[in-house]
Amino acid sequence: MNIWNGQHRRIYMQEVGTRDGFQAEGTFVETRDKIALIDALSETGMAKIEVTAFVSPQAIPALRDAEIVLREIERKPGVVYTALVPNMRGAERAIEARADELNLVMSATESHNLSNLRMTREQSFNGLRQVAASARDVGLPVNISLSCAFGCPMEGDVPTDTVIEWTQRFVEEIGARGVTLCDTTGMAFPQQVAALTARCIERWPQTEFTLHFHNTRGMGLANVLAAIDAGADRFDASLGGIGGCPYAPGASGNVCSEEIVHALELMGYDTGVDLGALIDASKRLPALIGHDTPSQIVKAGRRLDLHPLPADFAAIREPAPLRSSNCSPSAKRFAARC
Amino acid sequence: MNIWNGQHRRIYMQEVGTRDGFQAEGTFVETRDKIALIDALSETGMAKIEVTAFVSPQAIPALRDAEIVLREIERKPGVVYTALVPNMRGAERAIEARADELNLVMSATESHNLSNLRMTREQSFNGLRQVAASARDVGLPVNISLSCAFGCPMEGDVPTDTVIEWTQRFVEEIGARGVTLCDTTGMAFPQQVAALTARCIERWPQTEFTLHFHNTRGMGLANVLAAIDAGADRFDASLGGIGGCPYAPGASGNVCSEEIVHALELMGYDTGVDLGALIDASKRLPALIGHDTPSQIVKAGRRLDLHPLPADFAAIREPAPLRSSNCSPSAKRFAARC
Repeated sequence: MNIWNGQHRRIYMQEVGTRDGFQAEGTFVETRDKIALIDALSETGMAKIEVTAFVSPQAIPALRDAEIVLREIERKPGVVYTALVPNMRGAERAIEARADELNLVMSATESHNLSNLRMTREQSFNGLRQVAASARDVGLPVNISLSCAFGCPMEGDVPTDTVIEWTQRFVEEIGARGVTLCDTTGMAFPQQVAALTARCIERWPQTEFTLHFHNTRGMGLANVLAAIDAGADRFDASLGGIGGCPYAPGASGNVCSEEIVHALELMGYDTGVDLGALIDASKRLPALIGHDTPSQIVKAGRRLDLHPLPADFAAIREPAPLRSSNCSPSAKRFAARC
Repeated sequence: MNIWNGQHRRIYMQEVGTRDGFQAEGTFVETRDKIALIDALSETGMAKIEVTAFVSPQAIPALRDAEIVLREIERKPGVVYTALVPNMRGAERAIEARADELNLVMSATESHNLSNLRMTREQSFNGLRQVAASARDVGLPVNISLSCAFGCPMEGDVPTDTVIEWTQRFVEEIGARGVTLCDTTGMAFPQQVAALTARCIERWPQTEFTLHFHNTRGMGLANVLAAIDAGADRFDASLGGIGGCPYAPGASGNVCSEEIVHALELMGYDTGVDLGALIDASKRLPALIGHDTPSQIVKAGRRLDLHPLPADFAAIREPAPLRSSNCSPSAKRFAARC
């Protein structure tokens, strides 16, 4: 396969901005605005939307309206509406609110699991197993997100075997339908991504693998391409690129949905996403969260969103003395941009 | 070749921040600070440094000290010190100040050439030819930067044949040692980059081709990788990622030197650059230009710059009741980051 030429290969995009993005915001986004935004996202062609998280409202007040949001959005057939649940109580709430899938989370490293979830990995795993069992009882599929699959901000490199072992437990002990390999703090790099992705997909061809990259060190799109090259076809991304990195204030978090879709579509991949509708949705964000987003596509427009010609072109086109050796008044505008 | 694995392939990095970056800044960077920064960059392993531009001081006051800077920097053997020159007067000044190379510029499209250089392309080309002749007279090599080689913000797509025709005139009529294909406003995408780069390198194997990408739409690193895959080994980049895009206020301009080096080194390419020294140089920028830079590597650190473990880990590691189904006080810190 020529990675640079998608040849209409299908890539499934999964939106995480209303969960992973909003939970990182200081501002509470009004419930009706969340619902309207998710309804707009449903129309863009996203394969899956992580609507919200059923966590303690004291811990994450930004998502304290999880029930209402998940219940009141308009469900578009074909779109999977998932919700993050950290524990049994969250699972009960998500099931009650009719989530299509439960997304569970634990970390590949002990340090990050302790830091992020305040439990050991074994404690987390046992909790996940219980939640998965109750999901199975009501016929709901489970996805498990493995944080720090490509590196841990405290422990550094994570052995590939560690990631494979946890994935095995998720797939074979818990029966997860999907596993998300998360680059929680932007430590993944393409060679590593290609190797780990290939190993997982080859070993568990029936499992729905998602790659969740952060652009913290500018490698987000390159990692997406490396994963595609290794056989992946599902990617998380965040509208506007919202959701920063707790370990690097001011740095990017999740890869930006419209940047990834814009690039993949230019390269001939078929994301099924209406980029114009996605950009329109992204443009709503600043009014909701109170600040601009990192989205480069919102700032710069699409590749072929053109600019008008300067009004004084006719004057320059007139036969004129060669300007190369003097400094005309118009040279004030000369910027010599390469 | 496996693009994700560099296998020590040599990639030459060329720094343009002190020219392309500083010229876009509102602040005048003190001459002594410019010289000190370039001297620091000389020690990083950059193959080439675009020191400054010999343009009208009225047009670009930020670079009004071009002569002093180019004369007073310490020349490191092996590093090529180049300067942008727009015309014969600039060329005379650059030659007098002992530039190693003259970098000339014109655009692939008539609209952008008129807008950026206030001349038609033919007028520009004739000027370039004169400048190149006088450079030849003193034994100086010439590089020609072709702006908008991957798209024009006013005309849109640029036919590949147009780029090939101008490149042919640069190489065969003017005798340029090098040609830089510039993605002036971030319109390049990987498939296009791979195709154009391969065509140029195959046709003129003796010419030194540089790829100059902007990260305006988030595709900078992916484009670098596509170009490498097509045979390129020289890339412009800007320290701290400084130098915005005049067509998209707030959007990124040049790809960031330390981000590209960080990624390529992780992937096994040999850039010859001391990343630590480069980051140290980048960290000087905010004091010089009066604001933070877009550098993600400065914000987030290198991939393995680790964070300390939280102090209260011991308490969590103690045998504890399974926290998965209640909300302990410590859950306040629970963020469920994926």
